[in-house]
Order: sequence, then structure tokens, then C-alpha cells
Amino acid sequence: MPHSRQQFVRGALLAFTTLTISAPSISAERPEDAIKFRRAAYSVIGWKFDQLISMAKGVKPFDKDEFLRNASLIEQLSKASLEGFTADANKGDTKAKPEIWANMSDFKAKTETMQLETGKLMTIAKAGNLADVKAQVGKVGASCKACHDEYRQR
Amino acid sequence: MPHSRQQFVRGALLAFTTLTISAPSISAERPEDAIKFRRAAYSVIGWKFDQLISMAKGVKPFDKDEFLRNASLIEQLSKASLEGFTADANKGDTKAKPEIWANMSDFKAKTETMQLETGKLMTIAKAGNLADVKAQVGKVGASCKACHDEYRQR
Repeated sequence: MPHSRQQFVRGALLAFTTLTISAPSISAERPEDAIKFRRAAYSVIGWKFDQLISMAKGVKPFDKDEFLRNASLIEQLSKASLEGFTADANKGDTKAKPEIWANMSDFKAKTETMQLETGKLMTIAKAGNLADVKAQVGKVGASCKACHDEYRQR
Repeated sequence: MPHSRQQFVRGALLAFTTLTISAPSISAERPEDAIKFRRAAYSVIGWKFDQLISMAKGVKPFDKDEFLRNASLIEQLSKASLEGFTADANKGDTKAKPEIWANMSDFKAKTETMQLETGKLMTIAKAGNLADVKAQVGKVGASCKACHDEYRQR
């Protein structure tokens, strides 16, 4: 159902404008929507992380403000991503392994490690030493990979 | 190519760790990646906007901090979304109409209107009058719809 979410959003907008449908149907979090959301959050994280890599490697000039904006967005999306791992969103159009739900506290801990490393990256980026920035981008990447290795299907 | 981006991110991580491939290949923005990114950004915006609606309508209790976090994330993602409308990303797995590229300044203006309304929403949410919040959520929704009506295929 590739367009179910768009239809849902359109429906929610319409419902909000006209107030013709009951409120609970707006807030329903269907498993397929939760899956779509978390996949989308990770896609944006990936896009933004590529931009951090480009700056850290000097492919793009280091722009501190832009770097910090992107790192902050990654951190926020990582926090939000956990909303997509609802109890019944453990199967469907997803590469998330069932082990996530069996080991949710470990999965959350690994997610928090990634946020911690991203927070450190922002502190380091503020100082502005590019070699340090590059090293810390590597640590953020390693924290992504640690979770992918264990909890994402290949 | 549903997994091209994941493979790309994995490749970028590997490249960063091992430094075995040349840097420019990491920063290449392929049209299909730009499309995937902007669709993902809009999906997250939709998910977060639904949460704003739920609070504005009283389906979920109004939590000011959470509301502001979500509205801010929407605003940031709206700004970032423009990165996905690169010159050659005007066709593919997308509902974006070609008219966007023909009228890019108008498209950007409509995107900025949405950000402006979201900024107003944050100011109003800080004040905390739920009726005002609800009215402004409606204005944000209308700014989404104005762009959808003109630039998104049904």
C-alpha cells in the first residue's frame, strides 16, 4: 500500500477542516504507518549523515552552522524513530528483525548510544577541528552499524 | 529499487571506515536518492503533523514541550525537503508534478508559507491557548494543502 499514508494524511487534513469524522480515527497508528514512518526517519537520517560525511572528508567545505543543523536533525529523528516500533509493527514491509521486539531495551540502548555519539559530534563540531570532527563522524557511523548488524535484515 | 538507498548508506559507511573509495562517489546525489529523501521527509512531516492534530483536537493531552518539539521538527524537515528537488529529480517514483520545476520560485514560496505558519504555530503553542493552537494547526494544514493541490499528483 504505497499510498496509504498519503491518503491517510489527506484524510486527516480533511477531517481536521470539516470535523466530520470522529477524532480517534485520526490518531490511530496502524502498523503499516508506523513502519512507513520509521523507514522514512531512517532515510532522512541516511541522507543527512551522508552530508556530514561529505563535510568531514572535505568533499564539501565545512560549514559549521549547516553541519550542526544536520547533526541536530539526525539526533531528533533518531529519538523520534522509536515511535515507529510499536508493539504490532514487527512485521510487514520492513527490514527490522523480530529480535528488536524481543530485546527492546538493548535496541533502545543502542539507539541512545547513537544519540550520545551524535551529541558529542555536535560539541566537537562547535570547536571546529576538522580532524576531530572526522574521527567522531566515524564513531557515529559505528554506532549506526552496531544496530544495523544486529537488528536489520540484509 | 526499494533498497538502493540502504545499500548506498551501507556503502558510504564502509567507505568512510575504510577510506578505500574516492570521496566524490560518496556525495553523489542520484535522482532516485533525492526522490527517496524528499518522500521520506514528507512522510515524517505527515506523521508528526498527525500528532499535532491529535493534541490540537484533544485526542491526546496537550503537552507543550512535545508539541513544540514536533512542530520544530516539521519546520526543519520542510526546509530540508527542498534539497530533494534537484534539477534532474523531476521524474521517477514520485507524485511531484513537473510543474514544480517549471515554477520553482512559486513552489519555494508555498513551502516557505508553510514554514511561516508553523513558526506562528510554535509562538501560539508557547502561549498555550488550545483554541488558538487548534485554529493555527488548521492554517498549517491549509498551507500543506495549497501546495498539494497544485503540485502533487492525485
